[in-house]
Formats: sequence, C-alpha cells, structure tokens
Amino acid sequence: MKRTVGFQGELGAFSQVAASQLAPEHTPIPFGSFDQVFEAAANGKVSAAVIPIENTLHGSVHENYDHLLKYNLPIQGETFVRIVHNLIVPPKVKRSQIRRVYSHPVALNQCRHFFENNPEFEKTPFYDTAGSVKMLMEQDLKDAGAIASATAAAIYGARILEKSIEDDRQNYTRFFLLNKPSAKGSGKRIPEIRYKTSVVFTTRNIPGALFRALSAFALRDLNLTKIESRPLRGTPWDYLFYVDFIGHTDDQVTGYALGHLAEVADMWRVLGCYPAAGIS
Amino acid sequence: MKRTVGFQGELGAFSQVAASQLAPEHTPIPFGSFDQVFEAAANGKVSAAVIPIENTLHGSVHENYDHLLKYNLPIQGETFVRIVHNLIVPPKVKRSQIRRVYSHPVALNQCRHFFENNPEFEKTPFYDTAGSVKMLMEQDLKDAGAIASATAAAIYGARILEKSIEDDRQNYTRFFLLNKPSAKGSGKRIPEIRYKTSVVFTTRNIPGALFRALSAFALRDLNLTKIESRPLRGTPWDYLFYVDFIGHTDDQVTGYALGHLAEVADMWRVLGCYPAAGIS
Repeated sequence: MKRTVGFQGELGAFSQVAASQLAPEHTPIPFGSFDQVFEAAANGKVSAAVIPIENTLHGSVHENYDHLLKYNLPIQGETFVRIVHNLIVPPKVKRSQIRRVYSHPVALNQCRHFFENNPEFEKTPFYDTAGSVKMLMEQDLKDAGAIASATAAAIYGARILEKSIEDDRQNYTRFFLLNKPSAKGSGKRIPEIRYKTSVVFTTRNIPGALFRALSAFALRDLNLTKIESRPLRGTPWDYLFYVDFIGHTDDQVTGYALGHLAEVADMWRVLGCYPAAGIS
Repeated sequence: MKRTVGFQGELGAFSQVAASQLAPEHTPIPFGSFDQVFEAAANGKVSAAVIPIENTLHGSVHENYDHLLKYNLPIQGETFVRIVHNLIVPPKVKRSQIRRVYSHPVALNQCRHFFENNPEFEKTPFYDTAGSVKMLMEQDLKDAGAIASATAAAIYGARILEKSIEDDRQNYTRFFLLNKPSAKGSGKRIPEIRYKTSVVFTTRNIPGALFRALSAFALRDLNLTKIESRPLRGTPWDYLFYVDFIGHTDDQVTGYALGHLAEVADMWRVLGCYPAAGIS
C-alpha cells in the first residue's frame, strides 16, 4: 500500500515542507483544516499526519494540542522549518508588471520591510501562501505576484523573483509527525540519538502544585525543553501544562519521573516519545 | 490634555473593545502595527496602549512579549475579551442578497460551522475584521457581508444580521494596558483587590535551572497563573520564561521572591504589577 501523510493547507504549504522532512517516502495529501487531518489519520485514510505545534514568533498552536488530547495519535517525530518567504510570479511576468502581491495576511505582515521598499506593490490578502501561487497560475495573472515557499513555486511551475523577503530570519515553525500507535517502526529506538518525551498534565490551582509536579523531573536531572501553561476551558483558574523533556520513555529514570508525576497531577498523559530536533 | 490610547487595527477591532474596558475615558487611536503602537506610547504620542498578549485558542502573542522587553512600558492592567463574531451587512442589505462574506482568515476559520450551514456564502479573506465592515460601507456593496465585532457594526453604521456565529464560545483574548512609568495613578494600590505581577527571566540550559527559579515563588506560596518557555533567538537551547503570579511588588514576600529569582536567573525583569482579571 502506498504510504500517505496528511497536512493542512494547499500543496506547497510549509506543512508540506515539514512532511517532506519527517516522512519523505510518503505521498503528501492536503486537507482543509487541522480537524480533518487528525480525523483522516485516526480513521486510517492517511498513514501519518504532520501538524504545526509552535512558532518562534507566534507561539503554540493550542488548537493542535487540543486535537492531540482528543485523538490517540502518538507523536513520533519533530522538525523545525525556517519560514522563508519568496516573491513568486508566473514564468513570463516581469517585476515591472506587478501591481498586486497576494498572500496570507500573516505572511504579508512578515514582509513589512519588503513592502516599504516596494510601495508600488499593493498587499492583497489571500487564503493561504501556497494557494495564492496556485491562483496566480490558474488565472494566468499578468500583473500580480504571490508570497510563498520555494516548494510552492516549484509545484505550480512559477518563478521566484526575489528570495527570502521576510523581515525576521529567526522565524521557525516546529512540526510533529503523528502515527497510529500500531504503526510500523514506532517503537524502534536508535541508541545514539537523543529523544524527547512530551507530556500534558493538569494540577489543582493551589500554590506550589506546579512546582511539585516539576520536581518529578528536576529531582531526577531530567532537562525540560518546553513548559507552557494554558487555562482550562470552563474552569478559569485551573491550568493544563505541556512539558517536553529530554529522555526516552523506556529509560528507568523516565519511568520513575512519570510515576512521581502521576502522584501529584490530577490528569496526565504521554503525548509521544521521538528523536529530538533543534533549530538548525 | 485629552487622553488617548493606541491599539492595532481598524476602529472596531477587538483591541478597541479591550481599550474601552481598560481605558474607558481615553480616545482610541488606531495604528497599523504593534510596533507603531509601542513606539507611539514610548514617544508620548498616545497616553497609553492596549495590546493583545494571549488567546485561549491561539496561544501567546510572542511579538508583543518582544516589544514589552524592548520598550519600558509597564503593564498597568489586564482584561479578557470574549471573541464574538457577528454577520454584519450594510443597513438595507437582506440575507438573500449576500453572495460573499469578508473577514480576516482567522475569523473566517473560527466560523466554519456557519459556512457549512450557509454554503451559498463565499468566504472572502480580508485584512482585518473591522476593516471588512468599513470596506462594505464605503463601497456600498449590496451583495456582501462581513464578520466582525458588534462594536465594528456600531462604529460604521452597519447592521448585525446574525449574532455570535463563532464555532467555539470559549475563545478569549487577554489584553494588557501599558503606560509610561511616570503615568498618573500608576502606583496607587487598592487594598481590597488581588494583584498580578508579570516577570520575564532567562536561565542557563542546565537540568533543574527552571525548577530552582520557580522555587523562588513556590517556597513562598506565591501562586503562578501563567508560565511559558520560549526558545531564545540565536541560542537554540536557551530559554526565556514568562511567569505571572498573584502578588503585588510592594509585598515583602514578593520582594524576597524576586531577590531569590535574581540569584538564580541570568536575566530577569518585572514587566508590570496590575489588578488581576479572570475570564468571566
């Protein structure tokens, strides 16, 4: 059976770039929403899923943490993709012909200096970055450009007129690869590499509750790489915590830490254990 | 002198709703970007500023944390605004005339059920929510609607055709009120109310560093209401932490805690001390 990986967005979206890093042998299948990506992976319509989880400028994608809690799809990999925006046009369009530049408003805002330096270009909001390239090509526009990934230019046969026009080069999005628990190879451990484990837990809102929960990791010298609190819906002063730490769930010390966490947390769950990636 | 409050977006944006709660006697002044809002407040072009800092669905607005670090504008208040989306039309337009519905893509995506139930409406991305109402009215469109706040409908003289069309009612944005340190009344403490203090700090990436930093609060029974880590730009494995806790900087115990934090953190700063608000 041909293996497939679901992602949200049009072909050429940054999620597809992440999918090509995390699941290079899978055929990428676009979906309209994160919901649909999780649903398709849970129902076996795709073999795996790739979803964004946080961005260095915009923070965590809480919606996807909600889906991770709802669906039982363990995290099996992570990657960081640098968000590089390019000015893209149909093959024969020249720079002097461009009047409007289409893209998602977030991408347009991330290229503010570019528009300040090119006041003749009108910023034009569109549904998504890759979709704006697709639209340019389908409608054969002669007076417009788009802002999107190099992958989008390649997929739709468009041309990159100017590379890396984003204001801030320290703009990375972290993506997770999700599989069914039974997926082939999901349990294989490679001895030489460093693993991360992601857990979610809740504590009652009493002073020091979080501190006690974190002692489960700190007392065992487990190094946290992410911690984030989030108000629990419906119970305004209670919190959900996301924690990532360096360690494999097969390690004895991780077992002790999770046993200790179970004592002090109201609810807890391992979201996955996977090879650690860094911002490169 | 007339007091003014800067915010990002068009008149009628959710930030203006927050400004009306946090600074009801100030005249709201719209700006194109968060940068410009901070700059205007720092230069005294506006008396105060209101900025979004986190959303229950989308997480923290890291860009604004960066600006809080860069500009010395203490937080002097917080509020939570429930994000209510409404279908808005020019006064004489009937529902049966609507072909397209304009709004910011994030707002369009937050009304997915509405569009599923009304497939005759074409979702049309626009720069921002309130701006789409302004545009409808200026261009006197007869076949289009917009999705925005009730405030936007009121400001531009448009009509709400359907209220609260968002999928998820647990969608709140938290906003900060910022003032210059010298602003009148900034130091007044009201004895009956609960205060929050926001701090930011960095620690070296060694196991237990965060735990030691948090002990400064936990050992003194100070209750954290938010904690979030964020990778430091340029030093991939080092982290910046944002912490909010219940307490006033004038309290002796807060002084001890901050003194202890100073011992264990590489860098730390109080971002502000302000009356605590909850999601109501």
